[in-house]
Amino acid sequence: MKLLVTGGAGFIGSHLCDALVGEGHDVVCVDDLSLGLRANIEHLAGNDQFRFEEVDILKREQFRPVVAQGGFDAVFHLAANSDIPRGLTEPDIDLQKTFLTTIEVLNAIREAAISRLIFASTSAIYGELDQALNEDTGPLWPISLYGAAKLGSEAFISAFSACFSIQAHIFRFPNVVGERATHGAMFDFITKLRANPRELVVLGDGSQVKPYVYVKDLVAGILFGWKHGHDRLNCFNLGVDSATSAIQIAEIVRGEMGLPDAVIRYTGGDRGWVGDVPRFRYDLTKIHALGWRAANTSDEAIRVAVRAELDLHPFRPQGAA
Amino acid sequence: MKLLVTGGAGFIGSHLCDALVGEGHDVVCVDDLSLGLRANIEHLAGNDQFRFEEVDILKREQFRPVVAQGGFDAVFHLAANSDIPRGLTEPDIDLQKTFLTTIEVLNAIREAAISRLIFASTSAIYGELDQALNEDTGPLWPISLYGAAKLGSEAFISAFSACFSIQAHIFRFPNVVGERATHGAMFDFITKLRANPRELVVLGDGSQVKPYVYVKDLVAGILFGWKHGHDRLNCFNLGVDSATSAIQIAEIVRGEMGLPDAVIRYTGGDRGWVGDVPRFRYDLTKIHALGWRAANTSDEAIRVAVRAELDLHPFRPQGAA
Repeated sequence: MKLLVTGGAGFIGSHLCDALVGEGHDVVCVDDLSLGLRANIEHLAGNDQFRFEEVDILKREQFRPVVAQGGFDAVFHLAANSDIPRGLTEPDIDLQKTFLTTIEVLNAIREAAISRLIFASTSAIYGELDQALNEDTGPLWPISLYGAAKLGSEAFISAFSACFSIQAHIFRFPNVVGERATHGAMFDFITKLRANPRELVVLGDGSQVKPYVYVKDLVAGILFGWKHGHDRLNCFNLGVDSATSAIQIAEIVRGEMGLPDAVIRYTGGDRGWVGDVPRFRYDLTKIHALGWRAANTSDEAIRVAVRAELDLHPFRPQGAA
Repeated sequence: MKLLVTGGAGFIGSHLCDALVGEGHDVVCVDDLSLGLRANIEHLAGNDQFRFEEVDILKREQFRPVVAQGGFDAVFHLAANSDIPRGLTEPDIDLQKTFLTTIEVLNAIREAAISRLIFASTSAIYGELDQALNEDTGPLWPISLYGAAKLGSEAFISAFSACFSIQAHIFRFPNVVGERATHGAMFDFITKLRANPRELVVLGDGSQVKPYVYVKDLVAGILFGWKHGHDRLNCFNLGVDSATSAIQIAEIVRGEMGLPDAVIRYTGGDRGWVGDVPRFRYDLTKIHALGWRAANTSDEAIRVAVRAELDLHPFRPQGAA
């Protein structure tokens, strides 16, 4: 198939490109490189199944021709602002990069008569609900602008799907970890310990507990759900049953970096930042019943991701040989 | 209090202005008059509690100064595209007038440090669910762009409320009827029978059954819910327990117009147009428990509205004295 991946040079998008090329598809990756990196896709550069276009989706004159002329069977829309706390200081960023990019994609595929859309959504649409979250859970009161922009995107995808006969697959991701990540607790902790190996300051009281999924598991789940969801509108929570606390992440990172004596300090409070959802649990019955399950638990995902990051950028404690 | 009403020259907005002025508040009404009418508010023109500003919310240089300089205690945001089927032929209209107006209002009140927002939402956010709908019902899969734009608006209101300490009251309206209405089945039927008193063509098979609320009851419900909802984020379904079918509306209109012999024809199909939700039921437990109930049933609301319209614009069948 001919497939378009938006945000394809980003963390998750680049792994998706890898998997789609690996399955024999022809992939065009668009990315404005505001968060995505050429380095994430440079290993695909020589592959004639793969093409990269540096395109800002919000610049219609750049994006529309790519969609119109591509002859795509389906579009995977992953482009978004992935830096959730940034919405607090730049309230426009999620409107623009997380929401309006979706509107542009919807209008572009409608014009090009492309009838299949796969969308990267998020657990953040559920806001702060103290229950196991399944795909039918309500009410939906997001507490971050990122979550709002993804819920708004879902809403328009739903309406476009109904009004203009577009098949949609919506996947709601939890926290995702692994190679090429640029945000998130695990990544922050590594960065902080590289800067100061004696002490790790953790935002909040460390009690935040969330499911973390390994990026390659997540991508496998997307492809599985896409192939096995046959409704007009398909929605799946993707993730793991297990969960990891901020304390555990800090301890795994400290251990894997060979810094058992680093002191972990907590700033206090039940969350890392305003808009952070401190704990949530996914009910994964729907995707499990269809036959998919993540290979790694949440703790394993953190450990695999920490090791991959340290393989890529080795850390040598001062004084070590 | 000093209050701003957006869309205040529209159907529901103008009744809200009436009620707020009637309660002694100082009201500034903004409207771009694209759907609103001067005629809806001209009776308020001499009242020094009331001021009208012809403002397009999306023109920031027009709207921001009104909000910044008004010293408002709260903003009632009703401005929207109210012509739902229009989204099918103009897919941009609800993005602009129903969704982005909300974003502009949110940014404007945040800048002006106004901490109270009252928002007109809709049953259309629920899409097509075969169950009694309460405020916590999920999933939310709107089937019209209007419903999507209102759900997207709710999502951003939720996030702004959480991130920037804004108290929000969200009211989800069902179909609303009454004086100054410009859309909807009842209004269409009157218009059609004025043009051709012998025959009334009804879109769909007439089996669509929905709750209709009388506009003055709805406005009373908004003010009640606003005064009695003390959470940071308050959401209420407003409406009536009862419902009226398209067949019943056609018969009420025919009877009230003195045209008992007019033939009612149905175009067939379970709904009037793509994006129409043919039947829904509200669970009103939350607002009822707080102490509010609509004065008129759905059938009564239709009849009151038909009579009010015919009082304003009398209909004399040809051949009648």
